[in-house]
Amino acid sequence: MSLPTDPAALWSTLTPGPDGLVAAVVQHVDTGEVLMLGHMNAEALARTLASGRVTFWSRSRRQLWEKGETSGHTLELRGLAVDCDADALLVRAAPRGPTCHTGAPSCFFRPVGEPAAARPSAVFEQLFAEICERK
Amino acid sequence: MSLPTDPAALWSTLTPGPDGLVAAVVQHVDTGEVLMLGHMNAEALARTLASGRVTFWSRSRRQLWEKGETSGHTLELRGLAVDCDADALLVRAAPRGPTCHTGAPSCFFRPVGEPAAARPSAVFEQLFAEICERK
Repeated sequence: MSLPTDPAALWSTLTPGPDGLVAAVVQHVDTGEVLMLGHMNAEALARTLASGRVTFWSRSRRQLWEKGETSGHTLELRGLAVDCDADALLVRAAPRGPTCHTGAPSCFFRPVGEPAAARPSAVFEQLFAEICERK
Repeated sequence: MSLPTDPAALWSTLTPGPDGLVAAVVQHVDTGEVLMLGHMNAEALARTLASGRVTFWSRSRRQLWEKGETSGHTLELRGLAVDCDADALLVRAAPRGPTCHTGAPSCFFRPVGEPAAARPSAVFEQLFAEICERK
């Protein structure tokens, strides 16, 4: 059963935390790489759905933040899912350029200890991502 | 540059929120599927590293929660990374059984609108996951 795409109707199905926010995990729609974790309030979610570009609530700057609004490294919305207790979103997106402000493809670029061995399907994922980019 | 695996040393590099917690995105180590979002405090992270089984701080129950302690559906730790602003972890894990308490493989099983088309590499990921399970 899918959830409504109307922003207000969708927001009403969510259970934001005491800060009025839900967590938003962003995953690369083609490769499956986890790119970043942000937060959304009702307006950020509404803008994301209306513009097709992923928009967060910046907790540090206390303002709406369209990812890439200054860098151009936007996240184009491709899919959205809600978790079982409705306080987190999984955002599938096509990134335009690196997601991290450091220039790394993903914000999760610092491994603890030795990096895990590459996932067995990683080579296929990379191949398909390249094919998609060349379309 | 990798981060320390000593729990106290690692925790000291993190910037938990005002609630003393960091968010922890759990990703299937083989398929790349995002399984759930939880939270950790210093003790949850220490127990995760010591036991090799992913342990959270339950915000609703206000206690440590080893995933699968009652259901048996544990998450075996395979890798860990920290994001650029050090307030979120990416946990790579091998799930023993479904991750969601509903029986779904992932907690993010409720799509908004029409589900996104399957990622092009999804069929390879599923194939490799099956191969890994049959080893």
